[in-house]
Amino acid sequence: MEIVTESSISHPEKLWGHVRRRCSLFKDKMIKFGKGMVKIGKDDPRKVFHSLKVGLSLTLVSLLYYARPLYDGFGAAGMWAVLTVVVLSEFTVGGTLCKGLNRGFATLSAGALGLGAQQLAALFGDQGEPIVLGILVFLLASTSTFMRFFPRIKARYDYGVMIFILTFALVSVSGYRVDELLTLAQQRLTTIIIGVATCMVVSIFICPVWAGEDLHNLVASNIEKLGCYLEGFPVEYFQSPGDGENDVAGKAKPCLQGYKSVLTSKSTEETLANLARWEPRHGQFKLKHPWNQYLKTAALARHCAYQIEALNGYIHSGFKAPKEFQNKTKEICTRMSEESGMALRLLATSMKSMTDPSPAVVHVESSKSAMKELKLVLKSVSVNQADFLAMIPTATVASILVETVKAVEKLTESVHELASLASFKSLKTATVSPEKQAPQLLHRGSIKPVLDGVDRDHVVITVLECPAETEKPQPVNGEGVKRSEVNISCKQILSADSFFSRCRTRV
Amino acid sequence: MEIVTESSISHPEKLWGHVRRRCSLFKDKMIKFGKGMVKIGKDDPRKVFHSLKVGLSLTLVSLLYYARPLYDGFGAAGMWAVLTVVVLSEFTVGGTLCKGLNRGFATLSAGALGLGAQQLAALFGDQGEPIVLGILVFLLASTSTFMRFFPRIKARYDYGVMIFILTFALVSVSGYRVDELLTLAQQRLTTIIIGVATCMVVSIFICPVWAGEDLHNLVASNIEKLGCYLEGFPVEYFQSPGDGENDVAGKAKPCLQGYKSVLTSKSTEETLANLARWEPRHGQFKLKHPWNQYLKTAALARHCAYQIEALNGYIHSGFKAPKEFQNKTKEICTRMSEESGMALRLLATSMKSMTDPSPAVVHVESSKSAMKELKLVLKSVSVNQADFLAMIPTATVASILVETVKAVEKLTESVHELASLASFKSLKTATVSPEKQAPQLLHRGSIKPVLDGVDRDHVVITVLECPAETEKPQPVNGEGVKRSEVNISCKQILSADSFFSRCRTRV
Repeated sequence: MEIVTESSISHPEKLWGHVRRRCSLFKDKMIKFGKGMVKIGKDDPRKVFHSLKVGLSLTLVSLLYYARPLYDGFGAAGMWAVLTVVVLSEFTVGGTLCKGLNRGFATLSAGALGLGAQQLAALFGDQGEPIVLGILVFLLASTSTFMRFFPRIKARYDYGVMIFILTFALVSVSGYRVDELLTLAQQRLTTIIIGVATCMVVSIFICPVWAGEDLHNLVASNIEKLGCYLEGFPVEYFQSPGDGENDVAGKAKPCLQGYKSVLTSKSTEETLANLARWEPRHGQFKLKHPWNQYLKTAALARHCAYQIEALNGYIHSGFKAPKEFQNKTKEICTRMSEESGMALRLLATSMKSMTDPSPAVVHVESSKSAMKELKLVLKSVSVNQADFLAMIPTATVASILVETVKAVEKLTESVHELASLASFKSLKTATVSPEKQAPQLLHRGSIKPVLDGVDRDHVVITVLECPAETEKPQPVNGEGVKRSEVNISCKQILSADSFFSRCRTRV
Repeated sequence: MEIVTESSISHPEKLWGHVRRRCSLFKDKMIKFGKGMVKIGKDDPRKVFHSLKVGLSLTLVSLLYYARPLYDGFGAAGMWAVLTVVVLSEFTVGGTLCKGLNRGFATLSAGALGLGAQQLAALFGDQGEPIVLGILVFLLASTSTFMRFFPRIKARYDYGVMIFILTFALVSVSGYRVDELLTLAQQRLTTIIIGVATCMVVSIFICPVWAGEDLHNLVASNIEKLGCYLEGFPVEYFQSPGDGENDVAGKAKPCLQGYKSVLTSKSTEETLANLARWEPRHGQFKLKHPWNQYLKTAALARHCAYQIEALNGYIHSGFKAPKEFQNKTKEICTRMSEESGMALRLLATSMKSMTDPSPAVVHVESSKSAMKELKLVLKSVSVNQADFLAMIPTATVASILVETVKAVEKLTESVHELASLASFKSLKTATVSPEKQAPQLLHRGSIKPVLDGVDRDHVVITVLECPAETEKPQPVNGEGVKRSEVNISCKQILSADSFFSRCRTRV
């Protein structure tokens, strides 16, 4: 920052140069600001539409206020319509409805209470009236303000409580006679209703932005970002400089940054969930959509993101373990990470399309079986004392991946519960959790990876066909049990239907 | 939830029972609500004071509105004072100032602009006027609303932009003649100023709640929570069921939960930092206090919390490594964790008292030297193939602890930078980072733990007294270099002064 000194003022050329530099600085700032604005608009065009919608509602209401006949009817109360529109114009429908309903109920109840307070105070005569009114206003304002600290009230009725205090204070001390007050109240209510109605109609019927849909998409995209990371992690971690895999790693990099936003998305999710509760049925979202389950799912996704954050600390630590250990762990860790990633991606896809999330279960099982294999491999690995130190980073990565797989499993269960509560499409059975569901199936079996070391994309699915009444799986070739096997590529199983139909055909 | 069915209605006793149950349910809810309220008040009595302050401001302003002589002077504009007080009464001084200043500037600028718009529209004749006004309102409302999406504007001027839109719409379409408008504007401005002044005076001079102080305390207590966890972790992790340490672990437990709130405190910190920028000098907080550095420090603390979250996954995994490995790692891991924890606690203490955070450096160095020792131990450990699997969880814990130590070091540097920027008390030299500071010291030396296996609370500090002009440390017993050693308990070094005075005495 340059400072205009006396010497610079005494030299007009210097001063001129200073002014020019300032102007160009200002110009640069404005250009940057403009570019930022264009970026915001491009990233989310709904924000542009929202701005136009606010302009429209305000113009409509302002002109109503401006038009003489209406103005004469409403008097100065017309300004309440303008005020209401400006205050209620929130980005989401939920925000507008929350504020609108809060404002409506608070105005009505506080108005009635204020009127009562005025009547009560009048009983105390001219001298006592202001004292009683003062005490009443003080008590109500203090109590209501304190109630705003209660988390549940703060989340849902904060605005209502504020309007309640405001209206009560205005009405109780207005000093109007009751008949005057009733006219005024009627005028004010009518204009407020006009304002609220304008806002709601514009908000709901012109390019609506639903908080519920935003929450749904946010949770799904968060899960997708985690999946993206887990799919990209092995490429980045296990590459060696001479591998020629640098190009692939280069492409994977933006994918490895996305998860960071999941770490701090809690407050956004909570705000959206609170607003979503006010929204009417829209699209596939019912009036009592299980918004709490979204918060639970989001918390589990965040827990998964914490594991990934720990994993990310090792991504550039280099893979310098002894050759034998490298070969054995690389394949299994890659499988654990990729299968978990694929499961998360399928969960995100199924959430976005609101369809059965079962296809993800195959990948969860696959990553779990890789987890079990890892134990066997670690048992069998020959440890040279000198290598122990070099093995630790990879062992740590494997260990964190195991925790990640567990976190992904919990997340999968939560999405299944969500799918069941929100009745996602083509959910053939009410799946609460893949674990709990298993005993109710007619076909039981196991999923194991193909262990030829090359074809890590394939799994062997062994299906045991048991009688429906059998509670526990029978021993292989037990009475009344048929055993069938299918070797199937995980990547091909992209939808539940194809998966189930393949099983049916082969069995 | 019980439902009143026809049969229950037909039996008065059943109905009566139902009503009684409902009443007792309602009573229980009310008692719970009341208890919640009392808890909020006990946890933070400032919330009770704030509520009383709002009641007081509102009563003052309401009575001003109610008092006839004043009311006659201001007309209905008196309600703006009430409205202003209700809207501006924020919990923190920063919140009130932010809204008050935003409201003031926005009202003035939008009022002038609205007057201009009215004059401009009047040029287009009776027919053109509403059209031109409509277009102007639409343009200004749309642009301003879109600007509210710009993160910087949203954080600081959101309320101002809203008031700007509101005032512009009200003034430009008011349809008043200019002389009427000026009287109205003057009345309204006076009452708004009365409202703003009342709020500000009450907010600043009666039990003020400073957002800056809250941010300062929040960051410090977050760091303390992390320290508390790291100090409690070894007790919980390394205990074996027969150790008789269960009692200690039981006591440590509440300490092991606190860090979770650090994971999700980002939005609170950002809000407080934005409000703190509006606050005047108070206590040790200057007008341009380095609030951004608080956010940086908080982000590093959160990074540390992510490592702790990963660590926490292993806390109950059991410590089942082979005996030799157990003995070797337990001591070093405990030292790493406890020393880091102690460093964090000292950082928190120094932040709270706004004093030199240097005492923490001793512990950071101690945890770093433990980190280096760990490498040596891991190199020297004899690995039995069968034990390798059992060693992995502990190796992982050690590995995550290494990352935690690194995170703590970065956090320490950040707190030092903060101390230097915010001029913490008795900061003898401007410490940017403990690493960078070292070469400028007259006394150089090393800090090593006492390696007798019992006394892990003590360190040996070797101090080399070199001539001031010497750039690099001289070899031990080199010319002009005196070597002195001090064996000191880490726990005793609680303040920078005692630490430095001890060193001075012994050297």
